Amino acid sequence: MSTQSRQETADAPHWSAYGPLDLHPILVHTMEAFNEHGYHGTSVRDIAGRVGVTVPALYYHYENKQALLATLLETSMKDVLDRCRAAAAEAGDEPLPRFCAMVESIVLYMANRKGLAFLDTEIRSLEPGNRARYVALRDYLEHMLLDTVEAGIARGVFTTPIPADAVRAVLIMCQGVANWYRADGPLTAAQIAERHVLLSLGTVGHPGAVDGLAGIPSRRRTAPPRQRPNPEGRP
Amino acid sequence: MSTQSRQETADAPHWSAYGPLDLHPILVHTMEAFNEHGYHGTSVRDIAGRVGVTVPALYYHYENKQALLATLLETSMKDVLDRCRAAAAEAGDEPLPRFCAMVESIVLYMANRKGLAFLDTEIRSLEPGNRARYVALRDYLEHMLLDTVEAGIARGVFTTPIPADAVRAVLIMCQGVANWYRADGPLTAAQIAERHVLLSLGTVGHPGAVDGLAGIPSRRRTAPPRQRPNPEGRP
Repeated sequence: MSTQSRQETADAPHWSAYGPLDLHPILVHTMEAFNEHGYHGTSVRDIAGRVGVTVPALYYHYENKQALLATLLETSMKDVLDRCRAAAAEAGDEPLPRFCAMVESIVLYMANRKGLAFLDTEIRSLEPGNRARYVALRDYLEHMLLDTVEAGIARGVFTTPIPADAVRAVLIMCQGVANWYRADGPLTAAQIAERHVLLSLGTVGHPGAVDGLAGIPSRRRTAPPRQRPNPEGRP
Repeated sequence: MSTQSRQETADAPHWSAYGPLDLHPILVHTMEAFNEHGYHGTSVRDIAGRVGVTVPALYYHYENKQALLATLLETSMKDVLDRCRAAAAEAGDEPLPRFCAMVESIVLYMANRKGLAFLDTEIRSLEPGNRARYVALRDYLEHMLLDTVEAGIARGVFTTPIPADAVRAVLIMCQGVANWYRADGPLTAAQIAERHVLLSLGTVGHPGAVDGLAGIPSRRRTAPPRQRPNPEGRP
């Protein structure tokens, strides 16, 4: 499988910063085609036509349509995972700010990279090996969040008696943002992320959430940028 | 559009009871094909082949592939709406038990009718008129839940400062059950519904949710049946 994915460099942007989508044009056109017509409704010929290359030229870069889907989904999951880990590291070990930062980073991703994040609906189209690799990354994200919630329960910060269910629900509501977020909607990505932090705190049973953010420490951020409109133009 | 949908009769089953899926075989095969290959990846010829009829015979029943999708989605949304209204009516006007019953009914639907509920991912494939009709039904469900949450806020039962966001998040986490529920998994549909009631109470800021169901009135149920395994056999 080719690796035209986002470069991880020493000067990677802050986890909350989003520039234009940095993907090979073949992947951008493939993402758009999959989002419009689904994986099974898109042919390699369709993609080649969008890119403006011949089918053989496309095969020079990617073995087949499955490799394109797997590359897109893995690129996306690795990016959200990297950002979530950076957010957690920046927040430190205290479960409450750590949980808040992780949720914020995930929601910012779903809003700012909704074209990639929306492809999550095509996991069913991954072949077993690719699917296993993708699910392993997704499970890693889920366990990172679950570890934090369980640490919070141990310290009495969170009170849910069903932490695994709560974490799954939180991830599903965050993922849902990729479906409904519109760059021209009434709320910015940053505002939606902030609201999901509050909702998620309620879901994991943080007493402060019931009082509407009372007791939630303000989170330090390096350079809190105004979120740019989503540059992907997903349908 | 044809209306091979579930008959609404005077002896409709209790909102929490699920028998085998009562759909015309054409719709069952169409649902399975859409779930496996997506709307755009399925042809009318594929569906006719699954049903074991000719393409003209299929067109005798349904105008086209779009009519099949619209019928399936509307049938599904009307069923969940009917069950949710019945659950709310049975629970009465008190916001707390009413909210709990509505969430329970929605989650039971997502688990027991996951083959239909999963088609929600194909809303993007609906043509404008069909989409508008479907979205109107979905909005009705959302408003029913929001009215209850706002009534609860007025009485101090729920405390979320962002009720519309909270209701959307609750519906997204309930809808998510259709993606991950397995009839052979460790929890029954009824147990998953019960857990989602607790998670949802946290999301809308019910103080009792923080204490793990303390303060939540036990819900009366007419004939609480053990949920049967999902008879649809969705992929």
